[in-house]
Amino acid sequence: MPYVNIKITDEQVTAQQKQALIQGVTSLLERVLNKPPATTFVVIDEVATDNWGVGGETVSALRRRQGK
Amino acid sequence: MPYVNIKITDEQVTAQQKQALIQGVTSLLERVLNKPPATTFVVIDEVATDNWGVGGETVSALRRRQGK
Amino acid sequence: MPYVNIKITDEQVTAQQKQALIQGVTSLLERVLNKPPATTFVVIDEVATDNWGVGGETVSALRRRQGK
Amino acid sequence: MPYVNIKITDEQVTAQQKQALIQGVTSLLERVLNKPPATTFVVIDEVATDNWGVGGETVSALRRRQGK
Amino acid sequence: MPYVNIKITDEQVTAQQKQALIQGVTSLLERVLNKPPATTFVVIDEVATDNWGVGGETVSALRRRQGK
Amino acid sequence: MPYVNIKITDEQVTAQQKQALIQGVTSLLERVLNKPPATTFVVIDEVATDNWGVGGETVSALRRRQGK
Repeated sequence: MPYVNIKITDEQVTAQQKQALIQGVTSLLERVLNKPPATTFVVIDEVATDNWGVGGETVSALRRRQGK
Repeated sequence: MPYVNIKITDEQVTAQQKQALIQGVTSLLERVLNKPPATTFVVIDEVATDNWGVGGETVSALRRRQGK
Repeated sequence: MPYVNIKITDEQVTAQQKQALIQGVTSLLERVLNKPPATTFVVIDEVATDNWGVGGETVSALRRRQGK
Repeated sequence: MPYVNIKITDEQVTAQQKQALIQGVTSLLERVLNKPPATTFVVIDEVATDNWGVGGETVSALRRRQGK
Repeated sequence: MPYVNIKITDEQVTAQQKQALIQGVTSLLERVLNKPPATTFVVIDEVATDNWGVGGETVSALRRRQGK
Repeated sequence: MPYVNIKITDEQVTAQQKQALIQGVTSLLERVLNKPPATTFVVIDEVATDNWGVGGETVSALRRRQGK
């Protein structure tokens, strides 16, 4: 009964991509640890780029510097 | 000074229900472990059904199959 | 399919008390939100008193001041 | 490569304040543990006051009693 | 710069299996969301079976009933 | 009433360093957001290097390559 939490920045992730992450993590846990998919939970958190910091600055600031 | 995090799917949970969860968990920790309510924190996260996976699929997909 | 994480200080919590917390939280979610117990997960983290801070000091320091 | 998660109530925190938290935590980890800023992640979660409990009540209820 | 937390029960997981989980999750995030592996963090928590509850009982109790 | 979780690798962090982290984070939240120290919680998790992954490998493997 694994519980997996995936935190990513909130940058236009589609429902299909979320589905692919959930499917992929669940399969991985079955393959590596023989965990039954029925009781594997996956929770995806999309975090605003103002609320995620790396290198002491927000990802919003980083994206502006990258011209994105 | 316990910290409790409750993650549930975001499916029309009312303010009254949240209050009941917070009250109930705080009382439980006082009853079982003698923890003072004043320093018990409870944080409820409501997770979009597209972002919660079980059995390798999203809860959105599960609800569609259940006709909900 | 709720997921609940309870963080408490590591101060001689017994297996019976852990069982009571798990049972109590699971019942609470069934009573308040009609969540089926079979898919409610509860994870208890016991945190060393050196690793838990409140009021800017560790709980270890707090307990020493309290004569515990 | 530290990972820091800061949970605060969602009460009009500005982008400048978030930046100050990210900068401050990253510097602290460099000063105390010599952790390189480039691989320090900070995630800030702003939690609705209906979803945060303390003393068995929601922060929304607490704020109303405080006349805020 | 994703952050992934995998919680599993503490039941003799080997270093090789942990490596396979870390490798697999990192590849998945690169494949699905184009996230650079260098800044993907994965943290595995192994939780004692007394501290994990499902269906209102501890996994320790569940394992005893399963004759494990 | 902020809650802060700091995850670092388990590499000989002293009680004095933990105290400095707790003190520093608590002061930061008071300075930036005017949060009262008495209700700021900080929890430090020390994660085994086998259980922390970055760049698709464990920190244990990374440290071996670095000759540490």
